[in-house]
Amino acid sequence: MPNPTAAMLVIGDEILSGRTRDANMHYLAGQLTERGIDLKEVRVVSDDRDAIIAAVKALSEGYTHVFTSGGIGPTHDDITADCIAAAFGAHIDVRADARALLQAHYDRSGQELNEARLRMARIPDGATLIDNPVSTAPGFSLGNVHVMAGVPSVFKAMVASILPTLTGGAPLLSRTLQLFKGEGDLAGPLGAFAQDYPDLSVGSYPFQKDGVYGSNIVVRGSDAVALDLAIKALEAKFA
Amino acid sequence: MPNPTAAMLVIGDEILSGRTRDANMHYLAGQLTERGIDLKEVRVVSDDRDAIIAAVKALSEGYTHVFTSGGIGPTHDDITADCIAAAFGAHIDVRADARALLQAHYDRSGQELNEARLRMARIPDGATLIDNPVSTAPGFSLGNVHVMAGVPSVFKAMVASILPTLTGGAPLLSRTLQLFKGEGDLAGPLGAFAQDYPDLSVGSYPFQKDGVYGSNIVVRGSDAVALDLAIKALEAKFA
Repeated sequence: MPNPTAAMLVIGDEILSGRTRDANMHYLAGQLTERGIDLKEVRVVSDDRDAIIAAVKALSEGYTHVFTSGGIGPTHDDITADCIAAAFGAHIDVRADARALLQAHYDRSGQELNEARLRMARIPDGATLIDNPVSTAPGFSLGNVHVMAGVPSVFKAMVASILPTLTGGAPLLSRTLQLFKGEGDLAGPLGAFAQDYPDLSVGSYPFQKDGVYGSNIVVRGSDAVALDLAIKALEAKFA
Repeated sequence: MPNPTAAMLVIGDEILSGRTRDANMHYLAGQLTERGIDLKEVRVVSDDRDAIIAAVKALSEGYTHVFTSGGIGPTHDDITADCIAAAFGAHIDVRADARALLQAHYDRSGQELNEARLRMARIPDGATLIDNPVSTAPGFSLGNVHVMAGVPSVFKAMVASILPTLTGGAPLLSRTLQLFKGEGDLAGPLGAFAQDYPDLSVGSYPFQKDGVYGSNIVVRGSDAVALDLAIKALEAKFA
């Protein structure tokens, strides 16, 4: 059975303006690979209602799961929850379960659950809350879309909450062979090698560091024994 | 006149598997912002022909410029040039101008311009070459799509080659006010402030570092005087 597929949607002007370097994509990619969920596409869009809704619809239809990051805080530019609701045609308002979580949190910290903070309790009807052990305000899953915060520490905590609830596949394993040869010298025999192992994915990634250059040959697949055999054959070929 | 718009397409299994953390998106975002070209969307897709062609078509139709990174080396998994040609219905083969560049380069270094390396001279008819002062193998522009290498040092060099040839707009300027208050306390008055300055974009980005937390309020726009006035008003509001 093929692995489940996934897409990620990163929401935020600050990434597209170059002000902030996104960290969540790389983190999620590693987590999904370990769990055997194949990340097939990532999109980054700005804090724009139409752009978010269009991307959510396209990705939700195309992949088993969609993970979003960003835009669920208390400020005026946090519009993700309302956009997800609109994409699914779901009603959205402050929901009692999310409100109770926030009320308890702010009571403990002696802060006021004001109108702005209450925006973080806006959850679409039919959505399941995603636990946020870092700062309480929950994410949510609606249909196959999992909505999480953009702050990396909170994003990671939410990924840890949601991933164990999803059905994974065979984890994608990889073996790397580092060769101190340029890709141009390897490419011919490497292409032939890739054709000999149609069940494995063979990639070549050039590197150049401190004046030394070479290529990392990465072989990926879900069968550890097949991978070990392939990497041995590769070593013999290029030794 | 509104600024030109742009999208970026990052091509590569290694990003989606979490093996490599992309660096080119953040770099390009900063460069485009300085030049007044508004980066509106980024997509990351795998080394998959159909996925690359579909993304190129969608982005090429939607934005003034499309910048791609990755997949133009000599190995079997480098399929970007052929996909771009297919997306535009253009013929592609080894082209004399690109071949001459590579021949001179490998003659100088005493290496053979073998069949694999010659793949890097595959350029669609009608495309303009993008200079690569780092490792010679050129990128190219076809229509509004600018095709560049994934290796960060080469990507940067190609961006430096192509950007001065494109018409920019008014550079997007930004001012940041750092406040040691949580977003929940700022969100109400900040939303009202954003409504008072409809020509500026006002974003709020929470931070938490070494136990201290607060919010960076970022005001963006193309008019430096308007920005300075706004940030003074913001300081007065939250002082």
